[in-house]
Amino acid sequence: MNRPIGVIDSGVGGLTVVHELMRQLPKEKLIYLGDTQRCPYGPRPEHEVVSFTWEMVDFLLQKDVKMIVIACNTATAYTLKELQERLDIPVVGVIQPGARAAIKSTQKNFVGIIGTEGTIRSNAYIEALQYIKSDIEVNALACPMFVPMVEQGILTGEKAEVIVEETLRPLLKYRNEMDTLILGCTHYPLIKGVIQKVLGTQITLISSSEETARETSTILEIHQLFNDGREETSHQFYTTGELDIFTDITKSIFNSSIDNLQSVTIEQAIICRN
Amino acid sequence: MNRPIGVIDSGVGGLTVVHELMRQLPKEKLIYLGDTQRCPYGPRPEHEVVSFTWEMVDFLLQKDVKMIVIACNTATAYTLKELQERLDIPVVGVIQPGARAAIKSTQKNFVGIIGTEGTIRSNAYIEALQYIKSDIEVNALACPMFVPMVEQGILTGEKAEVIVEETLRPLLKYRNEMDTLILGCTHYPLIKGVIQKVLGTQITLISSSEETARETSTILEIHQLFNDGREETSHQFYTTGELDIFTDITKSIFNSSIDNLQSVTIEQAIICRN
Repeated sequence: MNRPIGVIDSGVGGLTVVHELMRQLPKEKLIYLGDTQRCPYGPRPEHEVVSFTWEMVDFLLQKDVKMIVIACNTATAYTLKELQERLDIPVVGVIQPGARAAIKSTQKNFVGIIGTEGTIRSNAYIEALQYIKSDIEVNALACPMFVPMVEQGILTGEKAEVIVEETLRPLLKYRNEMDTLILGCTHYPLIKGVIQKVLGTQITLISSSEETARETSTILEIHQLFNDGREETSHQFYTTGELDIFTDITKSIFNSSIDNLQSVTIEQAIICRN
Repeated sequence: MNRPIGVIDSGVGGLTVVHELMRQLPKEKLIYLGDTQRCPYGPRPEHEVVSFTWEMVDFLLQKDVKMIVIACNTATAYTLKELQERLDIPVVGVIQPGARAAIKSTQKNFVGIIGTEGTIRSNAYIEALQYIKSDIEVNALACPMFVPMVEQGILTGEKAEVIVEETLRPLLKYRNEMDTLILGCTHYPLIKGVIQKVLGTQITLISSSEETARETSTILEIHQLFNDGREETSHQFYTTGELDIFTDITKSIFNSSIDNLQSVTIEQAIICRN
């Protein structure tokens, strides 16, 4: 079953999911589509996010993908159920895997969530957690500064620490009760080190990117969709925005840990606009 | 979908999976069957394990379970594929979830596995790991003393430490390369503290019990089988062996962390013997 896995995101954040898919499922071929031109999705009304997401899904279906990963929290919150019902290939989002990993991790039954304003406002993580475990204690915090900070390439250093410390201050008073924090945005794994430093090592950080890659593996097994051939190194990346900017950000996200970036094709996506 | 989840094991080790299922999926009703009379399965020939496992599965099917968890490494190695092919309800084993969690965890691409002699001899973990990631380095060690030690109730203290230290000595030389160790036996989570003390905190221990419970959650979601009602507290435990002994061991495994053990029914299982 050597068809590719399709990954969509509103922009570049979903590349952290791609990074984990490459690491945890090195035999799989990936096609990534980032809707950078219309990013961010967070502040957009639901019908717009639904419509944009379907355009990306249609693009991927033409590439004959065997499975779709919605590597965007906002798109997951608004479209996961509909996509799962209407497509005849498996679809996974980024919210449920993170929620499940947090339930496994927490011994104190108290989980924190950080995300964009849109994700926190949607209550999607709280609903996913409490649907499975009604009595779980949850504290959610919107971190509007984190995505712009990451997109400016500020991932470490004093400036990053000051922003993270100020943003996360409301969570610090729960440090004794809360033992697990979900990084509920695919940008946040890029500043995981700073977040861990600010909160201390007694709090387990759950990366929705890592967890989504892991559940992708489970789903491939259940549906017997694993690529049983050789390791795959030719992935395809598409952007709806400027090629140069996307290429630069991609290189900076993957840093030196993806050796084969030169074999990645980055093309302009032509998607059917409403 | 309020039908129960069936869990089978050769004896009492699978109760650590039950413990995690209760913690991670508190709304689900469980029916556990331990084949304590014919335990251990490890040294038995394959055809016998297959036959015994089918007897247990038939018992659970009569209880109208919606899913089956094979909470036994030996039974998983010999029967998982056949059960998945022949049953029209989902079946999960304990090997693949642990392998997947280890792939996610390891940054050095080097994983250790400890298990019973049977499990290590079967190479099931190595195959599961390398099927997904061909180049992963693996070091496997059989720990024949651990199950008898746990069954005697030796879970902490000096004696436990001496046995664990002597048994794991061959792994110590890999401490710099290996960053992740799979506890490839459902008994081992009960001595996780001692194992961590002997190996040091830089090694991440993967509990196949915790990971199997988590994948059970994923599978329930994919198949839309979650219990959407209230939290469930009436579980049923069955044993093919002596009721008194099973009850004692069950109480000792769950300790005080399962408050509702008094509401658990433990009955003698009557299964169709060859």
